[in-house]
Amino acid sequence: MTVAEFVEELNAAGVLGAGKIGEATRLIAEMFKGPEYTVFLTLAGPIVPAGFRYMIAELIEDGYLDVLVTTGANMVHDMVEALGYKHMVGTFAAEDRKLRGQKIGRIGDIYIEQVAFQALEKWLFKVVDAIPDEKRKQISAAELLSEIGKKIGDKDSILATAARKNVPIICPALVDSIAGFQLWLLGQDKHLHIDPLSDVKALMDRVYEAKKVGIIMLGGGVPKHFALFANTFREGVDAAVQITMDRPEPGGLSGASLEEAISWGKVKPRGKAVTVICDATIAFPLIVAAALDNVRKEKIK
Amino acid sequence: MTVAEFVEELNAAGVLGAGKIGEATRLIAEMFKGPEYTVFLTLAGPIVPAGFRYMIAELIEDGYLDVLVTTGANMVHDMVEALGYKHMVGTFAAEDRKLRGQKIGRIGDIYIEQVAFQALEKWLFKVVDAIPDEKRKQISAAELLSEIGKKIGDKDSILATAARKNVPIICPALVDSIAGFQLWLLGQDKHLHIDPLSDVKALMDRVYEAKKVGIIMLGGGVPKHFALFANTFREGVDAAVQITMDRPEPGGLSGASLEEAISWGKVKPRGKAVTVICDATIAFPLIVAAALDNVRKEKIK
Amino acid sequence: MTVAEFVEELNAAGVLGAGKIGEATRLIAEMFKGPEYTVFLTLAGPIVPAGFRYMIAELIEDGYLDVLVTTGANMVHDMVEALGYKHMVGTFAAEDRKLRGQKIGRIGDIYIEQVAFQALEKWLFKVVDAIPDEKRKQISAAELLSEIGKKIGDKDSILATAARKNVPIICPALVDSIAGFQLWLLGQDKHLHIDPLSDVKALMDRVYEAKKVGIIMLGGGVPKHFALFANTFREGVDAAVQITMDRPEPGGLSGASLEEAISWGKVKPRGKAVTVICDATIAFPLIVAAALDNVRKEKIK
Amino acid sequence: MTVAEFVEELNAAGVLGAGKIGEATRLIAEMFKGPEYTVFLTLAGPIVPAGFRYMIAELIEDGYLDVLVTTGANMVHDMVEALGYKHMVGTFAAEDRKLRGQKIGRIGDIYIEQVAFQALEKWLFKVVDAIPDEKRKQISAAELLSEIGKKIGDKDSILATAARKNVPIICPALVDSIAGFQLWLLGQDKHLHIDPLSDVKALMDRVYEAKKVGIIMLGGGVPKHFALFANTFREGVDAAVQITMDRPEPGGLSGASLEEAISWGKVKPRGKAVTVICDATIAFPLIVAAALDNVRKEKIK
Repeated sequence: MTVAEFVEELNAAGVLGAGKIGEATRLIAEMFKGPEYTVFLTLAGPIVPAGFRYMIAELIEDGYLDVLVTTGANMVHDMVEALGYKHMVGTFAAEDRKLRGQKIGRIGDIYIEQVAFQALEKWLFKVVDAIPDEKRKQISAAELLSEIGKKIGDKDSILATAARKNVPIICPALVDSIAGFQLWLLGQDKHLHIDPLSDVKALMDRVYEAKKVGIIMLGGGVPKHFALFANTFREGVDAAVQITMDRPEPGGLSGASLEEAISWGKVKPRGKAVTVICDATIAFPLIVAAALDNVRKEKIK
Repeated sequence: MTVAEFVEELNAAGVLGAGKIGEATRLIAEMFKGPEYTVFLTLAGPIVPAGFRYMIAELIEDGYLDVLVTTGANMVHDMVEALGYKHMVGTFAAEDRKLRGQKIGRIGDIYIEQVAFQALEKWLFKVVDAIPDEKRKQISAAELLSEIGKKIGDKDSILATAARKNVPIICPALVDSIAGFQLWLLGQDKHLHIDPLSDVKALMDRVYEAKKVGIIMLGGGVPKHFALFANTFREGVDAAVQITMDRPEPGGLSGASLEEAISWGKVKPRGKAVTVICDATIAFPLIVAAALDNVRKEKIK
Repeated sequence: MTVAEFVEELNAAGVLGAGKIGEATRLIAEMFKGPEYTVFLTLAGPIVPAGFRYMIAELIEDGYLDVLVTTGANMVHDMVEALGYKHMVGTFAAEDRKLRGQKIGRIGDIYIEQVAFQALEKWLFKVVDAIPDEKRKQISAAELLSEIGKKIGDKDSILATAARKNVPIICPALVDSIAGFQLWLLGQDKHLHIDPLSDVKALMDRVYEAKKVGIIMLGGGVPKHFALFANTFREGVDAAVQITMDRPEPGGLSGASLEEAISWGKVKPRGKAVTVICDATIAFPLIVAAALDNVRKEKIK
Repeated sequence: MTVAEFVEELNAAGVLGAGKIGEATRLIAEMFKGPEYTVFLTLAGPIVPAGFRYMIAELIEDGYLDVLVTTGANMVHDMVEALGYKHMVGTFAAEDRKLRGQKIGRIGDIYIEQVAFQALEKWLFKVVDAIPDEKRKQISAAELLSEIGKKIGDKDSILATAARKNVPIICPALVDSIAGFQLWLLGQDKHLHIDPLSDVKALMDRVYEAKKVGIIMLGGGVPKHFALFANTFREGVDAAVQITMDRPEPGGLSGASLEEAISWGKVKPRGKAVTVICDATIAFPLIVAAALDNVRKEKIK
């Protein structure tokens, strides 16, 4: 059985989680097929440490994604992998005092050696150093990440692929990441000034030029809010899929329903919207694999 | 029965959620009592829209909190209340298309009129205008929020109280808020440049000067990560309480355990740490009321 | 601050979890005050092992509860405590292989020695032995639990108090408990036959004679479903409060909304219903303490 | 890409939800392949209403399952489908007062007409009537469900397939289902007595004769507890997979970890155990499809 046939079977059930996987697949296939769609992907949660950067890089490479809005952490881990450091399979039931002694950081059941971040710091130092002084004085996070991406050879890298394909990586809270703190240390000598208001501009440019907006949100946080709020300036997105494990009841934006988003003008009143309550490392690859199969079939016809 | 006696009863049970409320109360009372503690509060999720700003303002007023790390949204809603707009009790089962027509934004079962944000824009314009050009060219979010706080008379306002008491409000992703987008619009004319790396500095100053750090985290997101990561530079916090409804299994930082934080050096290996899995609008007021009762009793002795 | 004043403050907020605590308190106070109400309490999850049996026994003693519908496990743990065995405070991060070696069973962070269940078996043997043969041939779980309750002296025991106050304990899945398996062993010699259809009758008697039904549900499972479904025979309950941490999205009854219950006739179309998303060991004592305070105040007037 | 290749890719990631899907697939393939395994499937939550009865019937047909432990509801819905009534795709955001008027019951976003249950009652009446008086006087739920299964022709029916293949359907809380209440009404005339202690026997027979036990648990509730507790009499199961969305922190068995199960002797100290935090309507079909592909490949070799 192919993945597309499998999702078709879930779709036939049409209810509960199975039904949502089916609906999300159809909607994302629509976004991927339609040249009128500008497609945003927002990333929160450890999707890169979990091993799915190559999948996102490929989506960018193949022209399916137009804007990426992300936490700093996902980009930090993209760089770290590009530098040759690997995420390791660990366990949730770790002895964290021991890990600390071994200089290993834990993200759920993912392990990463701290030495990777020391290497990152050195490398980042050189990259920033190579940016002309004038530019460095006031640079958006998007431009900085593009400069970084240009220095990466690894074809599985999101940053490298995005830089090459001119897909902006919007990271409004870059400062809140290991790289952010390293840039702060660096900035004291190098007169580096990151200008987050320019990131608003970079994002708004894409929002304004879009005919239709489709958005795929993995997790919530700043990336979800920033991307959705930007779209209030065009009366909301046309199509939205969110994959999250957060609950709506405590009222935080990360778990908020897409109906709530309609009240704010983040989603159009007649926009199509699907919420999948599922671990993104299960639902996202499943939906993407099935949606792409769908898209390719259509192309062959 | 007083709240303190009630929490004592939960504490006697000592297990499951009841036990965590008991433990968290003891630990926060310890933070509040101890002059050696620098106490951080991090805010994510709609704690201000939910009506608890006066409680946080009071904690600042009474000297129990030394640093606030927050989402932009909570500060936006603090301003909006200061301008006289009120959050209304609505329903989760709202008809969001109607709310949009009525220009009401929904946060869970909280309603707020969009007109509040228009008023905010005008007011913010004036506040920024009054900041000297030189300062405006490169200002940290913390300084900007302090300037804003100085202009607010409302004694229940977090911003006003913090400005008066010289408690820094660290907001690394201020740009990702309604105010952030308004500042962007504004900045185009006014040459406003927010410098997030200065916010790292503002935070690090408090981290370095602290004898002991106690941290209370409501929700996760950027505030939790930023505050905890800053504390890796001093080998971790000494005491931590987090109140969250997020799950650890999907691996996101918001739901991450405080054991995981030990592996990163965010919490000291022998640090005291309690995770309360509960809606913050229930657990936070309960724990604070009981902890303060505790602290006051001790003072009377 | 008293607990009642505290809940009044949550109520003033009126939104999110705080608002639900306020609403639930008002509704339960209404149930407790109204002589027209037959009040059901359903128990799933370890509320007895967590230390709250005395609270439920007291509510029965004081005439606030008319029917209890419960898992077998909660009654097993009520018996075990009556036999003098104590639940201990443990940890979620236990080494379960060690616990097994030490003959300790774990429920979350609650520990209980297996020896307690051996003592239970011997004691249960005697209790069943004392039941006349004729009765034993076909006995409902409710009658059996009443017989058991009569043999218990401990005033904090739910079984003892319910037997004395003639409050039926309905336990449709008693067989699915340690006592159930012990009764099976016993039944082979003693010709014990439990008749669950008689439990339906015992429950239906209370349903049919009720003027109004108020129901408080801690957790979901069989107790929630059995009690609600019985009430479809009278067009639904008039007032319902559920306290749960389960989610509605996967479709299971335990996490199902009380709106869904209206479609089945479990809750009246104009019935009052509140769902509190919270750990029952936090929310239940809080709501009960505040509701009772409320009720007593009214009585004094 | 085939489903098996897809799961292989998740498995390569090896972490978070993706990793758990990979592990669970391997473990279930092991159970399915090994003739030494007696395989239990426990069902709680609306897996049958959601459209997956054919999948379970097929697993029974092909000899992969040896014992089914289930809620009454899943068997009620199996009967109702066998009678020709269909579950419909509805919405979580239903107007439940309207549904009630239209005599439609809602389970999440699944709709079912109440007329189906009236038809069930008549049919059940006839089925029970055809059971000899002597047998009816004291019948286990397992025997009763087997009698029912024999009367069903529908090849997608779990009950029919299980009856034909002599797979016991253990349903300790059958009384807590629509059929249970109907049997109660019926029993008043027909002297029907269900004997749940015989169900313990039916289950224990399979437990005692098993060389190795593998258990797959969808949701928690009585089925999970009953099946696991029965296995304490053989020192625990050898292999266990649970798929659930419930949380461990509130302490209920449904969300309890499989480590906790080791302390009770439900899982062997060296047993293999995987918990997948996912909607069962997504994870179960995915894992089964991939595991079967695995098993078939091996057979071809």
